[in-house]
Amino acid sequence: NVVALFEGEEESGSDHLEAFLEAHRDRFRCDAVVVSDSGRLDPAVPAITYGLRGLVYLELTVRGPNRDLHSGSFGGAVANPANALARLLASLQDDAGRVAVPGFYDRVRPLEPWEREAFARLPFDEEALRRDLGVDALAGEPGFTPLERLWARPTLDVNGLVAGYTGEGAKTVLPAWARAKVSCRLVPDQDPDEIADLLEGWLARRVPAGCRLEISRLHGARPVLVPTEGPFMAAARQALARGFGAEPAFIREGGSIPVVEAFQRLLGAPVLLLGFGRPDDRAHGPDEQFHLDDLWAGMRTSAWLWPLLGEVGS
Amino acid sequence: NVVALFEGEEESGSDHLEAFLEAHRDRFRCDAVVVSDSGRLDPAVPAITYGLRGLVYLELTVRGPNRDLHSGSFGGAVANPANALARLLASLQDDAGRVAVPGFYDRVRPLEPWEREAFARLPFDEEALRRDLGVDALAGEPGFTPLERLWARPTLDVNGLVAGYTGEGAKTVLPAWARAKVSCRLVPDQDPDEIADLLEGWLARRVPAGCRLEISRLHGARPVLVPTEGPFMAAARQALARGFGAEPAFIREGGSIPVVEAFQRLLGAPVLLLGFGRPDDRAHGPDEQFHLDDLWAGMRTSAWLWPLLGEVGS
Repeated sequence: NVVALFEGEEESGSDHLEAFLEAHRDRFRCDAVVVSDSGRLDPAVPAITYGLRGLVYLELTVRGPNRDLHSGSFGGAVANPANALARLLASLQDDAGRVAVPGFYDRVRPLEPWEREAFARLPFDEEALRRDLGVDALAGEPGFTPLERLWARPTLDVNGLVAGYTGEGAKTVLPAWARAKVSCRLVPDQDPDEIADLLEGWLARRVPAGCRLEISRLHGARPVLVPTEGPFMAAARQALARGFGAEPAFIREGGSIPVVEAFQRLLGAPVLLLGFGRPDDRAHGPDEQFHLDDLWAGMRTSAWLWPLLGEVGS
Repeated sequence: NVVALFEGEEESGSDHLEAFLEAHRDRFRCDAVVVSDSGRLDPAVPAITYGLRGLVYLELTVRGPNRDLHSGSFGGAVANPANALARLLASLQDDAGRVAVPGFYDRVRPLEPWEREAFARLPFDEEALRRDLGVDALAGEPGFTPLERLWARPTLDVNGLVAGYTGEGAKTVLPAWARAKVSCRLVPDQDPDEIADLLEGWLARRVPAGCRLEISRLHGARPVLVPTEGPFMAAARQALARGFGAEPAFIREGGSIPVVEAFQRLLGAPVLLLGFGRPDDRAHGPDEQFHLDDLWAGMRTSAWLWPLLGEVGS
């Protein structure tokens, strides 16, 4: 038996899926879950994704005076929310990108030796990525390779900033408020609520006199690891090997797919992340694409997958 | 003889006035200059402004990857320009508002004892200002009163911030660039070009790998002090005393009036800053106002001023 679940909320956090799964648990009881929302690293190597990062997303608003002020008439005697916001954000992280908030790394599950070895063998071209992005260097936490940082280390990124005058030229305004969107990608076994609590506590203790800080939690997703062993996973490997004509690699992904963690936790079934895209498919871009080669290989994989899964289940 | 000069560029920095004054220096030769672009602190006390702050205004743009990125796919391995901008801005100032850039205070002329005493005697209600602005505390550099900070100490204010996603809700973008408008109010004898050089050098040394910093200098004005003694100043005091029926106070102003420094330097004449406005006139606001009482008092003052100045000049 195959049960199909179509869900249209993934890009906005799958807020209602969990309650729906709980309410209809009996109808979704299954031996394994197949999700095709992942990709592979190299066109020549099919991949099974076994880890996804989670997410916590905060909006910070620092409020100062009740109106924008003339910086000549008030500057120096009134706390500036934009200056304060910059200091709050800078306090979250050291120069190398390591998060400075105590406890942030406490639950981070270290990479297994086999994972570091497997990641190192993957065809990942750091120099090509650097050139493609047009930067003089990749960056990030010391002691880890770029793939390790992307897949198995948590992050803290400022996603947006806005305050005061943002148009052309100069305006000497002392802004009434300043806002930042800040998110952390989380890794197993970090908990989004616990991390949000840690960040909020840290920031609240640092708000300067003359300013107030408001924090909204906009989004959260738990990180997830799925077992790389077991008969269903073996069937998936075999299907990919036949469909693509090459042995699949086990990879992780830096993004989040909240449904995966919910399926695993609520249905207690192994989740097989069999995606067929490539890193340069420009996912979410206005010119998103999917190679016809991948369409055929994906169809061949699926044609193998269901009978192979059926053999395990029977 | 009275020579009138009408200038319409004051609010955008008086960029052309200096060259005009130099080209027509003979036509503007004079014994004293009268400018009415200042105000007073208290309705009951007329005032002569003898000091103005200068200005240096920079636009900082931190550039990272050549396009906005998905923070899940790239976060942790690519330097984030918004994070970098926050750290650069935070590096400029300590928590108490003192500028951290070495050399910034080197040329700051200390307040004279008579000035600190005179400021302390002025009717300035710190608590009323705090309430009016709706903040829990005024703020700023330790060791100085609010009036001293506003009139005689330099500042560093972030006037604007923009980066990445600034709309409603969450978007997990790693922005390609981040921008800040930053300005310093300067006091005698700081030089705008020298301060801009100091700030640019400090920031340039702190740009993290994976990012580039672009800086534009948008605006500059020299700070100025005019002598509080001399026969023309005595005439001005007398005219104000008669016009308002009260002895005028010597005050400074936190804003900038670039023409004042240019008149003083290029014409070599004392500048009399006789303004009749009040602090709550909402200058530059959509509901800017001027009290009729002040109109009459200003007319009486002017009626006394010209004959009194004429007596000195003859």
